[in-house]
Order: sequence, then C-alpha cells, then structure tokens
Amino acid sequence: MESVKVSARSVPKAVAGAIAAIIREGKTVEVQAVGAGAVNQAVKAIAIACVYMQEENTEIISIPSFAGIDINGEERTAICFKVEKR
Amino acid sequence: MESVKVSARSVPKAVAGAIAAIIREGKTVEVQAVGAGAVNQAVKAIAIACVYMQEENTEIISIPSFAGIDINGEERTAICFKVEKR
Repeated sequence: MESVKVSARSVPKAVAGAIAAIIREGKTVEVQAVGAGAVNQAVKAIAIACVYMQEENTEIISIPSFAGIDINGEERTAICFKVEKR
Repeated sequence: MESVKVSARSVPKAVAGAIAAIIREGKTVEVQAVGAGAVNQAVKAIAIACVYMQEENTEIISIPSFAGIDINGEERTAICFKVEKR
C-alpha cells in the first residue's frame, strides 16, 4: 500500500493525479489528512481521481477511518482514506 | 437512494447512526456537505458508520463526487458521498 499525505494547501488535481497513478499500478492508496482543511482537500482529490479513473472505465472506492499519528511528538487524529479499485 | 445533509455543526455520531440505519435497510445513502467544516463532519460520520457496520460484519464504501446545488438561489458546489454496502 502506498501513502499520500494531504495538507490544507495541497492542490486537489495534483493529489488526484498521484492517486490515479498508484491505482493504475494495481495498488491501494492510503490518503492521510489531519484537520478539516486537509480532509476537504483530500476528499476533492479523491472525487477528481474518481473522474480520472471513470474515463478509463475503472471505478474506485474510498473507506475512511481514524488513525492516531505522531506529529512532532504530539498525538493527533488523522483521517485515513483507503482508496482502491472497486 | 436516501439523502442525508451534513453541516459543520452536525454531530458525527448522530449522522453515523442515520447512515447505518439506512444501510441496514439495504439502501444506498447520499451524504451531502457544503464547505470544509461540513465535509470534515461528513467524513467523520462515514468513518464511524464503517465501524458500526463492521461490528455487524458489513463493509461499507464511499464514493465522493461534486454536485452543484442551489442554496437560497445561489449555486454552490457540494460534495456528495455515495455510501453503500461493498
């Protein structure tokens, strides 16, 4: 599984391209976001990746979950989206 | 398909309960959110609904997309999550 980290400043189209590239390799992507702004950009990126893959007749799905991650020694709750081919 | 609208002030656990109830009926849910705060609450709700359904040995997936919706005569872009059994 490959991992993509998204921040509130990430560009959704660029992240979508990265997600689509990993899916095309037949892999599952874990998209990680901390905070509302980052989660919003992550969701936009996944929605755009869905469009990209639809154009290639591939349907992708996402499964969100909570994950505790360490940021500079502080415990934060991230949202992890598992994105894969349906 | 049943629809659930989420705002930035929605309580994720309550929304998750509503999503789970619809899934248990064998239906697909469309979770609609406008703005980063609402999208964040929607994702948390879906993640919690995933946990609820896992406890019942049911896996659920979400497929996000963009949708133009009308709010007080103004065109806004919403994120719609199609949530259904895998």
